[in-house]
Amino acid sequence: MTTITLTTDFGAGSPYAAAMKGVILSIHPGATIVDVTHNVPPQDIRYAAIVLEDVSNWFPPDTIHVVVVDPGVGTDRAIVFARIGRQNYIAPDNGLLSRLTRRICPEPVIRLTESKYWLQPVSATFHGRDIMAPVAARLSMGLDPKCLGVASKRLVSLEWPPVHVASRRMEGSVIWIDSFGNLMTDITADMLTSNRGEGEVEVTCLDCKIGQISRTYGEHEHGSAVALIGSNGRLEIAVVGGNAAQTIDARIGSPVVVRWPDR
Amino acid sequence: MTTITLTTDFGAGSPYAAAMKGVILSIHPGATIVDVTHNVPPQDIRYAAIVLEDVSNWFPPDTIHVVVVDPGVGTDRAIVFARIGRQNYIAPDNGLLSRLTRRICPEPVIRLTESKYWLQPVSATFHGRDIMAPVAARLSMGLDPKCLGVASKRLVSLEWPPVHVASRRMEGSVIWIDSFGNLMTDITADMLTSNRGEGEVEVTCLDCKIGQISRTYGEHEHGSAVALIGSNGRLEIAVVGGNAAQTIDARIGSPVVVRWPDR
Amino acid sequence: MTTITLTTDFGAGSPYAAAMKGVILSIHPGATIVDVTHNVPPQDIRYAAIVLEDVSNWFPPDTIHVVVVDPGVGTDRAIVFARIGRQNYIAPDNGLLSRLTRRICPEPVIRLTESKYWLQPVSATFHGRDIMAPVAARLSMGLDPKCLGVASKRLVSLEWPPVHVASRRMEGSVIWIDSFGNLMTDITADMLTSNRGEGEVEVTCLDCKIGQISRTYGEHEHGSAVALIGSNGRLEIAVVGGNAAQTIDARIGSPVVVRWPDR
Repeated sequence: MTTITLTTDFGAGSPYAAAMKGVILSIHPGATIVDVTHNVPPQDIRYAAIVLEDVSNWFPPDTIHVVVVDPGVGTDRAIVFARIGRQNYIAPDNGLLSRLTRRICPEPVIRLTESKYWLQPVSATFHGRDIMAPVAARLSMGLDPKCLGVASKRLVSLEWPPVHVASRRMEGSVIWIDSFGNLMTDITADMLTSNRGEGEVEVTCLDCKIGQISRTYGEHEHGSAVALIGSNGRLEIAVVGGNAAQTIDARIGSPVVVRWPDR
Repeated sequence: MTTITLTTDFGAGSPYAAAMKGVILSIHPGATIVDVTHNVPPQDIRYAAIVLEDVSNWFPPDTIHVVVVDPGVGTDRAIVFARIGRQNYIAPDNGLLSRLTRRICPEPVIRLTESKYWLQPVSATFHGRDIMAPVAARLSMGLDPKCLGVASKRLVSLEWPPVHVASRRMEGSVIWIDSFGNLMTDITADMLTSNRGEGEVEVTCLDCKIGQISRTYGEHEHGSAVALIGSNGRLEIAVVGGNAAQTIDARIGSPVVVRWPDR
Repeated sequence: MTTITLTTDFGAGSPYAAAMKGVILSIHPGATIVDVTHNVPPQDIRYAAIVLEDVSNWFPPDTIHVVVVDPGVGTDRAIVFARIGRQNYIAPDNGLLSRLTRRICPEPVIRLTESKYWLQPVSATFHGRDIMAPVAARLSMGLDPKCLGVASKRLVSLEWPPVHVASRRMEGSVIWIDSFGNLMTDITADMLTSNRGEGEVEVTCLDCKIGQISRTYGEHEHGSAVALIGSNGRLEIAVVGGNAAQTIDARIGSPVVVRWPDR
């Protein structure tokens, strides 16, 4: 029972997502379809790329993740199938998968060209419904991805700002903000461990200084800012019982610095 | 495996939709339930009618579409089952199906009167949960629609502003706006083809003039307004990488004119 | 085919809900998962408690309701399994179940301690994904709740403001507002019946006076305020075709008085 997930910028309650589900169920009546989110900001490829990085590996192996954030629909941008680790993805080749592929090489990558698996006629503006949904449905029924088109060597890759690591200092940024206003950064637990570990440390985001990395929110007073390793292994800044993004006035891209004071 | 869909004005995350799903699953534990949208503006029958027109035919034949936009709940308005084309609908008889029935005659139409298929007692204010959900569940298990009540000849029909077609000129309006701010009109590809086809043409919406009908967004510069045939066969106005509704200050009802210039 | 529902404060479209679904499907691929709502205001335990009271009994017996509104995550607050009536709940023990338990004694209550049923490692900040989701998946496959941990006698209980009942007078408050702006109160049909029944009565909310309890919205003029027994058996105040919360400027906690005039 392969699961199909949907990640789009259609907006909550958009009938476009429903049309995709209708197409999938028309081909594979028993399909299990799960919404990851339809709240990607319009055409925000980077936002979706981070959601995929944080969410997709929680799904069963062989899940088919369909991603429709597609500002180039109707140009000659490709649509690809890619297997990354134990998960499958169908997406326009515009960088959506470029956080997932930073650590794991996609294999195979297939450029979708076999139009016999698509709806006909294909509209000029909604390839999520006309190409990606029917292809996902057929894969979930057992179609071999190799049938979908021609093998491809590489995927479009976006530049992601690197985390700067120096002696006793690390500089990253806020890359995602959740509905509680918690700030997710591109500094990971792995980076911290391989540098200096937790312990005495100073975390700064804009004007907000935090004196340590805590284990959890609950240890601190209501209203205080805390830094901790979040549930996806990222350094995260939160305000206990409050909204860190509002309190600190931070947004995506705001700088975050970790510093180990001299002793 | 018949699919049941839900289209309501309950708002995203409303527990009312969950209550309907609970009722359906209580009667038919294996039911496949898909949300079309719960973001119909409160009591906006016309909005829902257009969503149904654009979405419902993407679902498998025999899907049961339950529609709860019901300002008249508790009055003597009927609730009906209607088969329109290859799809089934359960809705209050208030015009919700009146775009679908412009081209296809519903057959049969059954006015729901057999209360043995409803929850008891029926509340005065939530017939979606107490009448429509249990009836949909029973239909999805194979109940014959004829058992639901008495055959009816016609459905309540709303007036829809006609598209005015003159020589070398067509006047319609914006009937729906998607989450990207794209403007959907009531001028269809069919109308354009039977009048003068695509090609040299001028599309105007309020102060915005567009010199041609394009095939897709991608061919144009970021920020430019384009007219194209959208994924549901409607003339659509978009701003590439932007929000046409905001840029043009258009809303539902704004006039749209297509003109073929004299040569 | 046991259903699992999710009620959280993650916000619509949050990838956190998707991660929980991924975990559930990884353990139980055929699981039926239904969203009750993800729109509980952040950390608003009382709001969620009322949603559960009004929605959960519409689901099939033995449904597993997972509730993640968890300001104390990472402290020593317990996570519990509780059977209340014919429904099952998994939630942090912070009062989320304390409206459900006002009439029905939970039996059994199990404090979750058996970590072999959890994901490993357990994050410090997302027990919904790491503890509650895998436990729900295993229960839906038939695991005996007694295996989950140690029996417990009681649940954390929140104080709920009582409805004051005097001769010919009842004082309660608004406890929930739906997407139409309808005001749900803590005065129930049962209370009204056992006091003085419907009929000649005056309902007051802030500056708004209503002269009777009606059967339904539809009997009244557009724009008029009405009081009626809503679909969950609560006294409810609505404005026909409008938004009572805005018109009356009411919010959760606003006082509602029912008075039987002297004759």
